[in-house]
Amino acid sequence: MATEKKHKLKIIPLGGLGEIGKNMTVIEYGSNIVVIDCGMSFPEDEMLGIDIVIPDITYLIKNKDKVKGILLTHGHEDHIGNIPYLLKKINVPIYGTKLTLGLVENKLLEHKIEDAQLKVLNAGKTINLGCFKITFIRGSHSIPDAVGMAIETPIGILVHTGDFKIDYTPISGEAIDLDMFAEFGRKGVLVAMSDSTNVERPGTTDSERIISNKFMEMFKTCDTRIIVASFASNVYRVQQVINAAVAYGRKVAISGRSMINVVKVSQELGYLDVPEGTLVHVNDLKRYKDSEIVIITTGSQGEPLSALTRMANSDHKKLEIKAGDLVIISASPIPGNEKTVSRVINMLYEKGAEVMYSAITQVHVSGHARRDELKLMLTLLKPKFFIPVHGEYRHLIQHAKLAEELGIDEKHSIVGKNGDVIEITSKSITKNGNVTSGNILVDGLGVGDVGNIVLRDRKLLSENGLIIIVLSTERGTGRVLAGPEIVSRGFIYVRENIDLIEESKAVVRRALCKCQETNTREWNNIKMAIKDALSSFIYEKIKRSPMILPIIVEVNNNELPDLSDK
Amino acid sequence: MATEKKHKLKIIPLGGLGEIGKNMTVIEYGSNIVVIDCGMSFPEDEMLGIDIVIPDITYLIKNKDKVKGILLTHGHEDHIGNIPYLLKKINVPIYGTKLTLGLVENKLLEHKIEDAQLKVLNAGKTINLGCFKITFIRGSHSIPDAVGMAIETPIGILVHTGDFKIDYTPISGEAIDLDMFAEFGRKGVLVAMSDSTNVERPGTTDSERIISNKFMEMFKTCDTRIIVASFASNVYRVQQVINAAVAYGRKVAISGRSMINVVKVSQELGYLDVPEGTLVHVNDLKRYKDSEIVIITTGSQGEPLSALTRMANSDHKKLEIKAGDLVIISASPIPGNEKTVSRVINMLYEKGAEVMYSAITQVHVSGHARRDELKLMLTLLKPKFFIPVHGEYRHLIQHAKLAEELGIDEKHSIVGKNGDVIEITSKSITKNGNVTSGNILVDGLGVGDVGNIVLRDRKLLSENGLIIIVLSTERGTGRVLAGPEIVSRGFIYVRENIDLIEESKAVVRRALCKCQETNTREWNNIKMAIKDALSSFIYEKIKRSPMILPIIVEVNNNELPDLSDK
Repeated sequence: MATEKKHKLKIIPLGGLGEIGKNMTVIEYGSNIVVIDCGMSFPEDEMLGIDIVIPDITYLIKNKDKVKGILLTHGHEDHIGNIPYLLKKINVPIYGTKLTLGLVENKLLEHKIEDAQLKVLNAGKTINLGCFKITFIRGSHSIPDAVGMAIETPIGILVHTGDFKIDYTPISGEAIDLDMFAEFGRKGVLVAMSDSTNVERPGTTDSERIISNKFMEMFKTCDTRIIVASFASNVYRVQQVINAAVAYGRKVAISGRSMINVVKVSQELGYLDVPEGTLVHVNDLKRYKDSEIVIITTGSQGEPLSALTRMANSDHKKLEIKAGDLVIISASPIPGNEKTVSRVINMLYEKGAEVMYSAITQVHVSGHARRDELKLMLTLLKPKFFIPVHGEYRHLIQHAKLAEELGIDEKHSIVGKNGDVIEITSKSITKNGNVTSGNILVDGLGVGDVGNIVLRDRKLLSENGLIIIVLSTERGTGRVLAGPEIVSRGFIYVRENIDLIEESKAVVRRALCKCQETNTREWNNIKMAIKDALSSFIYEKIKRSPMILPIIVEVNNNELPDLSDK
Repeated sequence: MATEKKHKLKIIPLGGLGEIGKNMTVIEYGSNIVVIDCGMSFPEDEMLGIDIVIPDITYLIKNKDKVKGILLTHGHEDHIGNIPYLLKKINVPIYGTKLTLGLVENKLLEHKIEDAQLKVLNAGKTINLGCFKITFIRGSHSIPDAVGMAIETPIGILVHTGDFKIDYTPISGEAIDLDMFAEFGRKGVLVAMSDSTNVERPGTTDSERIISNKFMEMFKTCDTRIIVASFASNVYRVQQVINAAVAYGRKVAISGRSMINVVKVSQELGYLDVPEGTLVHVNDLKRYKDSEIVIITTGSQGEPLSALTRMANSDHKKLEIKAGDLVIISASPIPGNEKTVSRVINMLYEKGAEVMYSAITQVHVSGHARRDELKLMLTLLKPKFFIPVHGEYRHLIQHAKLAEELGIDEKHSIVGKNGDVIEITSKSITKNGNVTSGNILVDGLGVGDVGNIVLRDRKLLSENGLIIIVLSTERGTGRVLAGPEIVSRGFIYVRENIDLIEESKAVVRRALCKCQETNTREWNNIKMAIKDALSSFIYEKIKRSPMILPIIVEVNNNELPDLSDK
């Protein structure tokens, strides 16, 4: 086996480091690559008009012959959302647990991808891929069937925790397999990668089970409709709503496309236990009294188009919030969503609903380990080297510091960035250069066709709008035949600002005169002159900087333009 | 005095109810009006390009002869920011404490307003305005010189708490005057209005003083530069940084325009105690060792143009964060700012700084009362009627519920909205209609010239960009002389999508042919035909909906257009 040790183990994060989202990590040894997770993320505020963001996979495309498979830790979008886009470039086998692959299949259907190689690998099972021996380790997260994994490489064992918390009393199935994590720890872990999301929070995350009591308590005393909003993928949460509904004789209707999808998949695959006759269609709710109804819905993040927001805003086709409804928002706002969530809560109160939300009562628990759980994990794994993952830069830094407290040498932890090539031998861990990585923006069907210039224009347009100046000139002579006309959008309410528009036209005319006087004939120079003059005028007048777009149409009278289809 | 009771007391919130920001409340009795506060707010996310938002004061302009004065509770922007705009419409006297008016004066200078009537009214002092007798009551907030007030009206006493917390150990000056609040309570309070910001938080807010110990502790062990970011207006916080700096022999430099302003005003007016030789200019920092330097700066909310962000981003003219710097972000993210704050923290860590922020250690306390303090206040005031103020709708609702727990009849509390006319007699409180109210958007120098149509266009442009189609036609005949040309901005990167642009031109040409065939001559119809055809084509092709703007220039060959200045 000596020859097998001639390579360094390379760990190359393509996403998920220094950010929350689009998790994707390349594990490479010689001519063997496996990839852990394949996620997407939601756009940052400045990515105007963008639908989703996926990692740049140039490196994988270049090395596609090496790629033995994608290994999925669980079925959240930030871990599986890039699969359809990846498969359109390289068709490699995908390994995951049953529920994870069920959710992947759903995605592939939407993208009309039929030739995917989905291979179930359940927790506790092992598979060999190239020089790697991979074992999925049962985890615990806010979605069932989540796993961590050990990857035995020629130079040592890598353990990746996946997203995890330590829940000793899970809603269904067995608790996280601490024993197996410990077993690898005993064998000797060369490098560990662990979830950093909640590293800033002291103590431990509560068990999902405490929500059961809360629901039971609220259902017990309620004699109106109950509406529960949560993340669609939180099957445990849905299960607890169903349990409470059954206990108090309520029917359950599901609302919201993603919630309907997940309930269907998880019910089919046996992850959701729904007594017959419990689920009813939204259309049939009218047959029941308010006190016999629970509606489970999406919209816990206040998303403007989600079912809950539409119910609160009276623009849902079938459901509307009414006075007396009990609405439980069983989620915390994801950072960045605080305002939209707050807005929905306000709307619900204005409709006269009673609202329960995380700021006033515990209707949610996190799916990520806090500091004491992270300490437990690192203590079990006892890794030689440590790479904190799944977090913004601040979280990775805090996690590396935590590892240091536990005796892991500061120099043995690497706080990396996407694209870094982290090289590991049995004795050393170092950053060594980097590969192409970054954000690919998806807007509608376009993947990567919106870049910085387009985004910069969108930003400018969004802040100040635009002014178009149209002129028609005669070809050859440059004589102005029509205009200047001014059209604006997003700039000012024109009807109430006729004077400003007229003055603007005068400014353009003066600029044109000056061009004639100075014999300026170059279109670009004329355009620039118009732009400069108008831009200064507008800024001086009202301190705004709209985009200014002079358009000059050259006309040749003697020629009828070709209107046929080229 | 019997005749004086013939009117109802009207309370009309023009801002600050159901929102955080632009606080402004009209108190009216017969022909007498006083206004409590005169604030602005920052734009919501969907108010693209807007700088600030101010309340609609149509009602005050209509009733300007009744207005006896504006009564300011403290100097925060959401309480004084609208003063310059109000004074441009109605010049009424403004009453406030010394520091509050010092900050107002600063604002008026910027707006070049010279004829304002600023009248100092200190805490504990009383003044008569029309039929009202007003007493300022010493409060406690995150800015010095904050007050609540009692307004004795012909039908009873109104008490407004202002923004407050109960701090028994303030940094300077005396503690909140609970005794005076209690005294009015004993006399009998007809209606109370109280700060609802922190009603969702149990317990009490910590004293500002605990920050002192924290600063001392951090300064003691630090031998590098220290940079502290906080709200400019938090003079207490600045004082504590200065105290720690003096204790550990550091010089203090101030950075950021608003910080420099506030330090100047509060030092001049005696609200900030700075030993001589402590303050140095940023330019002179090079004379000192890193261990002898503290920089106090703005940017605690991660504002992109703030001093701290620029220091972290290497685009500050004079200062740059370097490895080893200790950066203390002595503030919590205001809801909505979580992501910008997090981004700055990440940038600081990437520069190698050590960062202390509220998620990992207590470097900030709130200026607003929590539930137990709110209970204390209501218990002292024992009001007959209650109007929760200063909060989103959810906070007002929770505060009314809290009042109910304390024995205030549910029907005696009014959860109102801006514009509501709340009518009070000695026996009743009711909502009775409403007056004009709302948001006036300020963009550059324009006040109110950006409305819904302009914002809708900005949103559309920001999400999808625009496509302009230019055609030139002959006047009279409608013959197409030039075009169609296509110009786009914020839509797609044109050079890499030539095909799509060419196909789009063909689509426009086909639409034009169809118009000719069907003898469609009306410009608007031709434009609509072009728009519909192109819009469908683009959506089908790449699932996007850019704004489409057909521009048709009519040309008359025989006439030279008038280019002279009209």
